[in-house]
Amino acid sequence: MSILEKIQSSADVKRLPQDQLEPLCGELREFIIDNVSRTGGHLSSNLGTVELTVALHRVYDSSVDRIIFDVGHQSYAHKILTGRRERFDSLRQYQGISGFPKPYEATDDAFIAGHASNSVSVALGMARARTLQHENYHVVAVIGDGAMTGGLAFEGLTNAAASGEPMVVILNDNNMSISENVGGTVSMLQTLRARPGYISFKRWYRYVFSRLPALYTFNHKVKEWLKARLLSENMFSEMGFNYLGPVDGHDLKRLETAIRYAREIDGPVLLHVLTKKGKGCEYTEKDPERYHGVSAFDPKTGEMPAASACFSSVFSEALCDLAAQDEHIVAITAAMAAGTGLDAFAARFPKRFFDVGIAEGHAVAMAGGMAKQGLCPVFAVYSSFLQRGFDMLIHDVGLQKLHAVFAVDRAGLVGNDGETHHGVFDLDYLSAVPGMHIWAPASFEELRAMLRFAIETETGPVAVRYPRGGEGRYRCSSLAPEQVLREGKDLTIVCYGTMINAVLDAADLLEEKGVSAEIVKLGCVAPNAFELCLESLKKTGRLLVAEDVCAAGCVGDRLLAEAAVRGVELHGAKLINLGDGLVTHGSVPELMKLCGLDACSLSAAALALTDGDQA
Amino acid sequence: MSILEKIQSSADVKRLPQDQLEPLCGELREFIIDNVSRTGGHLSSNLGTVELTVALHRVYDSSVDRIIFDVGHQSYAHKILTGRRERFDSLRQYQGISGFPKPYEATDDAFIAGHASNSVSVALGMARARTLQHENYHVVAVIGDGAMTGGLAFEGLTNAAASGEPMVVILNDNNMSISENVGGTVSMLQTLRARPGYISFKRWYRYVFSRLPALYTFNHKVKEWLKARLLSENMFSEMGFNYLGPVDGHDLKRLETAIRYAREIDGPVLLHVLTKKGKGCEYTEKDPERYHGVSAFDPKTGEMPAASACFSSVFSEALCDLAAQDEHIVAITAAMAAGTGLDAFAARFPKRFFDVGIAEGHAVAMAGGMAKQGLCPVFAVYSSFLQRGFDMLIHDVGLQKLHAVFAVDRAGLVGNDGETHHGVFDLDYLSAVPGMHIWAPASFEELRAMLRFAIETETGPVAVRYPRGGEGRYRCSSLAPEQVLREGKDLTIVCYGTMINAVLDAADLLEEKGVSAEIVKLGCVAPNAFELCLESLKKTGRLLVAEDVCAAGCVGDRLLAEAAVRGVELHGAKLINLGDGLVTHGSVPELMKLCGLDACSLSAAALALTDGDQA
Repeated sequence: MSILEKIQSSADVKRLPQDQLEPLCGELREFIIDNVSRTGGHLSSNLGTVELTVALHRVYDSSVDRIIFDVGHQSYAHKILTGRRERFDSLRQYQGISGFPKPYEATDDAFIAGHASNSVSVALGMARARTLQHENYHVVAVIGDGAMTGGLAFEGLTNAAASGEPMVVILNDNNMSISENVGGTVSMLQTLRARPGYISFKRWYRYVFSRLPALYTFNHKVKEWLKARLLSENMFSEMGFNYLGPVDGHDLKRLETAIRYAREIDGPVLLHVLTKKGKGCEYTEKDPERYHGVSAFDPKTGEMPAASACFSSVFSEALCDLAAQDEHIVAITAAMAAGTGLDAFAARFPKRFFDVGIAEGHAVAMAGGMAKQGLCPVFAVYSSFLQRGFDMLIHDVGLQKLHAVFAVDRAGLVGNDGETHHGVFDLDYLSAVPGMHIWAPASFEELRAMLRFAIETETGPVAVRYPRGGEGRYRCSSLAPEQVLREGKDLTIVCYGTMINAVLDAADLLEEKGVSAEIVKLGCVAPNAFELCLESLKKTGRLLVAEDVCAAGCVGDRLLAEAAVRGVELHGAKLINLGDGLVTHGSVPELMKLCGLDACSLSAAALALTDGDQA
Repeated sequence: MSILEKIQSSADVKRLPQDQLEPLCGELREFIIDNVSRTGGHLSSNLGTVELTVALHRVYDSSVDRIIFDVGHQSYAHKILTGRRERFDSLRQYQGISGFPKPYEATDDAFIAGHASNSVSVALGMARARTLQHENYHVVAVIGDGAMTGGLAFEGLTNAAASGEPMVVILNDNNMSISENVGGTVSMLQTLRARPGYISFKRWYRYVFSRLPALYTFNHKVKEWLKARLLSENMFSEMGFNYLGPVDGHDLKRLETAIRYAREIDGPVLLHVLTKKGKGCEYTEKDPERYHGVSAFDPKTGEMPAASACFSSVFSEALCDLAAQDEHIVAITAAMAAGTGLDAFAARFPKRFFDVGIAEGHAVAMAGGMAKQGLCPVFAVYSSFLQRGFDMLIHDVGLQKLHAVFAVDRAGLVGNDGETHHGVFDLDYLSAVPGMHIWAPASFEELRAMLRFAIETETGPVAVRYPRGGEGRYRCSSLAPEQVLREGKDLTIVCYGTMINAVLDAADLLEEKGVSAEIVKLGCVAPNAFELCLESLKKTGRLLVAEDVCAAGCVGDRLLAEAAVRGVELHGAKLINLGDGLVTHGSVPELMKLCGLDACSLSAAALALTDGDQA
């Protein structure tokens, strides 16, 4: 029986003799690599935090104490140690273990995570709740150096420091660019030497900045400054934190001692831990960025299947082509150069590429300034992360109707990352932005055409929203706001984006049953006068709208309202969408089926609408 | 002829002989006090930045150079100096001069402002646009120390510092709590002494923290830390800024020299200026907070008419009553204790009151953590400022459907503050938050009842949205999601909140014309099954929905969609709302009329709907 098999909780970790801890870490790494190589998931960050997680469980009881993982993609070891080992082969699969902390999965997961930089704010709220209610559990936030670039983390840190609340913020510093001027050893030593003979830490971690590719320079410059600043001798202590560190994040004994010490301090503590992303595996240590988030791969060699074309890669090529002809075009990313495909742009046009760190709000406001002065900024960003920039979209872009382009990637259901990552709210919040035009390409070719149109022809705020993954059977391209893709007489089916593929399949199924569906595909989702839709409805009298977004602000509502205002009479209408927008993790086809958006469900819904006529 | 009358532009300011500058500042102050005492507006911040503004115009040409005022309520002197003096008696009035920078008003206003902390991001975007396009104007951001507490400012500053772009950030430090450890004189001297004999600055500014009321302590602690940190000898310089300061913000000559010097530096500059809010007027100097934003007052004595009861004051009382009986209730504000009425709560329950600074995102995420651990957090916030917390509403509250209460003040049209401050998007973005219930009280009594219900009965995210100002003819109270307030047969008018007052008046007007309107008032705006609305529509067949929110996500769309899905046939429907949500400044009645939401317009629209029947 392996050591790992004996562990079901923090209490079990605590019971282990000291000499079994390192072997436990070895088993955890092997287990993680083995599983992730089959399920896909986040690899490097989880390998880097194995010892930190074990040490946390040695000191805290996660069933009572509250450990808040920032972003949460580093919580695999935590999940494996707290009763989810046996089900871990279901990681990120439909009805399986989530890749992020989920309180509904176990009380050991203190809070939902998925977006960056919120952990300190959440932990402060919990610490205050604990204190005001005279309870006595501990609260810990675990935040990476990347997440520290977000303004939300800054707000949380300044507030936490000033609060005086007993709580521990663990800065998981896994960046390779950690520089000479960290200099924090001193204060760690000073603090700890006050307890003579207790412990002594030494600095061990030194990596060379020059290894990083040039394109990340700007983002890293920001991080660099942050670190130079944050980690100076008394920065955190001046804020009000008790600063401890830096501690070797792979030295279990010292780590445990430091965390134990931090736990006992009666006030906010910042414990600075140095970890190495991808630690303990040759290929991940060598190229941790490549193994940040992965699909299935060969666990022995690290070899990954070649990536196939997807909307992100097509966007990348298309934007480079456009930028080669127009030097007003600049590109912005919020720490997602690879994910959005902008790394190619960065390589070709380094002076026109801006990685702002995890700072979507800043990215949008900066784009506003750029647009006002004549540039054409293109901010490529995931739909669910652009939520951070909502106010800036209205205030710094919409109010002046500035021509800024938003390449909204991961729109709709993203699949295995689940609730926190689905791009299902953007249609609602983008529609509220004054002057915003929202385009929804359904094929690669259409993405190219719409991106060109957004850049060259549009004159106000414009979003082009496209999903994760590739195209389906629809391969045409149209710039029409509305388009009748298939004529029919029994009902009208309206959709946009890659939803068209399931709708076309549904229409085939309906035809087999003798029902003739007219399909109207929207190219521009908002604003849209719905002329062809209404025309079609006058003919068919029945409407089915299929959308993979939340119900609030959906196209179906707007279309039906327009029909009523324009006096178009209907004999039946059904809106199929994602309701409150909370959709679990799983493959996209599984989730579409779950939500009634696959071809079978759609044709069944259409049949029900037309029932009675077809007898 | 006064000096002021000769000034129409930056160029005119530059032409003035040195000995006319101080008298100009005196005239500006007199002019501002005189005007604001009649129109209302922002007083203290404008009196504090008179010299700074004159100095900016001595150095820059605002018709070409880009001066970005953060928040923008300190731009009166700038407006008066750039061609808007003669129309300044129309300040904040309908069709008059806006109280905030507006590019449509003059090219001297570089960017829209109204929300805090965005200026550095916008300025960086402009500086980059300038450099990439090989143009050669200057870019300046003017940001107050309060706005520095916002995470967006932090994102902007770290990015601007790392950018190397020539641009000047002027930190307008007008806080009275400036402390001993500022210590920045040293570096200013160091920098400036490098140009021997050029200039020497001395520190002059010292105020005692103890003068501040206790309730602001926490917010000030944050600011304190920020300043201790930001203004330490080399904080900004380590970021990458060329740091200059602190400079006496009321010493015109030194200020002009410092700005001129900052302008010439080839890289990002942080110029730290110390100003006194309310400077130059006895009563504003004595109590600058009281004269921050004012209605008309006596310019001689500063006396203001007694404030009458409003939704904010009723909320304040009601929350205190509830909190006295339930110690789980805690209150949060983002630097708006007085505006939201929470100052009373802070005085009574100081340990349960949290002012987080201008950090709405943090406030929401912290509320999530509090709610998860059993407290009942009530975040009182203006509708348009809560836009900053949109992502956290979804991620840190909605995904777990936590019971956090949002007291959304200034919902709907706010009047004289205009575009940036109208609360017209909240219905859309709050509807997207999973599990969110949105209540809209129409009277003081209803606000009390709904707040109690939100706190004591609701179990998930809940918003109570109420407008600026007081109640109207509707004084009843109901907790019903829908309520037939008046029976009729010719059409159904649906509304919610204080819109009911105009609708009741409209129904009276319609009655005079022989049209019988049925009125359904919504208490819970979302979710709502619209049972009574649909019942009424089956009877009348005609619908008018009146809302003072933007069209996206409006109740009218949802109601008409529901009617269509449920097969309720209509013979006429009209939705009256604010369209894209861009509504200018003016009194609320003027704006309601402009938008077709006054009683006359509503009754006319209703008549048009029923036209043909009544012949």
